Amino acid sequence: MNEFELIARLTKSLPTNQSVLAGAGDDCAVLDFGAPDKLLLFKTDAVVEGIHFTKDTPPEKIGHKALGRCLSDIAAMAGTPTAALVTLGLPKGFEPEFIGKIYDGMSALAKKYGVAIVGGETTANPERIFISVALLGTVKRGKQILRSGAKVGDAIFVTGDLGGSPAGKHLEFEPRLAEARWLAEHFLIHAMIDLSDGLAGDLRHILKASDVGAELLKTAVPISRAAKLQARTGTPAKPAFAAALTDGEDFELLFTVAGGDAVKLLDAWKKTFHGLRLSCIGKIVAGGGVTIRDKNGARTLDDHGYVHFT
Amino acid sequence: MNEFELIARLTKSLPTNQSVLAGAGDDCAVLDFGAPDKLLLFKTDAVVEGIHFTKDTPPEKIGHKALGRCLSDIAAMAGTPTAALVTLGLPKGFEPEFIGKIYDGMSALAKKYGVAIVGGETTANPERIFISVALLGTVKRGKQILRSGAKVGDAIFVTGDLGGSPAGKHLEFEPRLAEARWLAEHFLIHAMIDLSDGLAGDLRHILKASDVGAELLKTAVPISRAAKLQARTGTPAKPAFAAALTDGEDFELLFTVAGGDAVKLLDAWKKTFHGLRLSCIGKIVAGGGVTIRDKNGARTLDDHGYVHFT
Repeated sequence: MNEFELIARLTKSLPTNQSVLAGAGDDCAVLDFGAPDKLLLFKTDAVVEGIHFTKDTPPEKIGHKALGRCLSDIAAMAGTPTAALVTLGLPKGFEPEFIGKIYDGMSALAKKYGVAIVGGETTANPERIFISVALLGTVKRGKQILRSGAKVGDAIFVTGDLGGSPAGKHLEFEPRLAEARWLAEHFLIHAMIDLSDGLAGDLRHILKASDVGAELLKTAVPISRAAKLQARTGTPAKPAFAAALTDGEDFELLFTVAGGDAVKLLDAWKKTFHGLRLSCIGKIVAGGGVTIRDKNGARTLDDHGYVHFT
Repeated sequence: MNEFELIARLTKSLPTNQSVLAGAGDDCAVLDFGAPDKLLLFKTDAVVEGIHFTKDTPPEKIGHKALGRCLSDIAAMAGTPTAALVTLGLPKGFEPEFIGKIYDGMSALAKKYGVAIVGGETTANPERIFISVALLGTVKRGKQILRSGAKVGDAIFVTGDLGGSPAGKHLEFEPRLAEARWLAEHFLIHAMIDLSDGLAGDLRHILKASDVGAELLKTAVPISRAAKLQARTGTPAKPAFAAALTDGEDFELLFTVAGGDAVKLLDAWKKTFHGLRLSCIGKIVAGGGVTIRDKNGARTLDDHGYVHFT
């Protein structure tokens, strides 16, 4: 039983109530707390020593990643983050100085995006550092963007460059908060997700939630320099395109808009965000699953995110 | 550096914003999200295998405890819990069936109190189960009860019986949600906290936040049967009064009201809550620290919650 199977089992019949507009299965829960113009976004995420960072990771970057992952999920709903709580599991003989620097990294990122850190909890976790962040945000009522709105004929877009994140970006990424809010304000975004599992996995989340399929144009997928470098020098050398599909932790935005909006969106984006590439990588089609098209034709992406090109 | 010293250091200069009415240092954070009549309560808490439960603990009780601890913190603010997120750190070779039953325990308690479980996150934590719960609640605007409102002359009350929780109650306690809301509705509660660290420690949190002291009447402190049994049969035998002061995890309410309200409150309580004892255990005094009074006079409780009686 993998992570997704377990989650599917655990979340099958969870208790709910009338405050819940979207529960398990999207980037954030969406809740109605009676504010006239706003809905609440609610998210938790954890980073664990030896899994998401190592003993050698600079502590400020651990803090950046711990909070940044949650911020990226708020971005995926076109929301604004507001307040965070931090739960720390601390191993035996932890160094307070090191923990303090983790907090420094979190605080710096929190300040940048106007997020308050409103407390938390420490407990023992004898073998390793475990950091769970709970984050609240808001979104204009009716402006939240779910995974489930993709429609046949939509253009599929992705921000930034993909792949190679384990080489460094996973500790230094910038959550795409401003970009996501700009998108929601200026265009009718049908579905959006942040790329944490990798393009192949996260696109499938949108497809499954929206009950559609996707066709990607291989040459249109933006590949990072880190992924290309790794393809040349890595051991084993992972093809750069495979890295872009499956490396994960890109923390870029993946979203769909009506095909007719695509050119206008690309033009407006270029005038607004000079430092960040936006790529149209394919289209939403009927059916399910992901097809990759290149000069040799179209092939199906398998369930593990792999596709075998010549 | 102990837990409280580390927290004091980490929370010294946290980023804040205008949504924050109370941040680190109370039972919950209190946030203003623009609902006309309500404020938001926000809390996280974690339970860890080997620390808060053992490999032999029935999984439903683990789930009950994990959510119950957060519910008890919402109760301490006189709030109503609404929605929870669950972060699971899972060891190698975990049993899905066991994890499912942890969720059953959480779900049963959530349903009882109308709480939605709106998702969560699973990650690896190779050596042990780590469960972090994030909980949202609401409280009527202006009706939140902080730790900082105790006044000289206040009567100090506690619900239930104290001590001996490690013998079983820590896995089965009932969060005092209805009782706390009733208190806030019918009386002007000056300060409130839930008993997680033990009477001695948690009373100090109120005293410190309110800049006052307390005098407790030894014979008035309600001692549980479990604490008395343990005093007779435990190895080593811990005096029952010491257990009531320091065992922790009672998850009862500790609160103060104006001395003039004390008798009226006790009368009204008895008519409303038949199954749960309410005890007036002492009074708030000027100065700081805790004094224990018995037939031999008054003695100071030391920093570790210990007092040496003859």
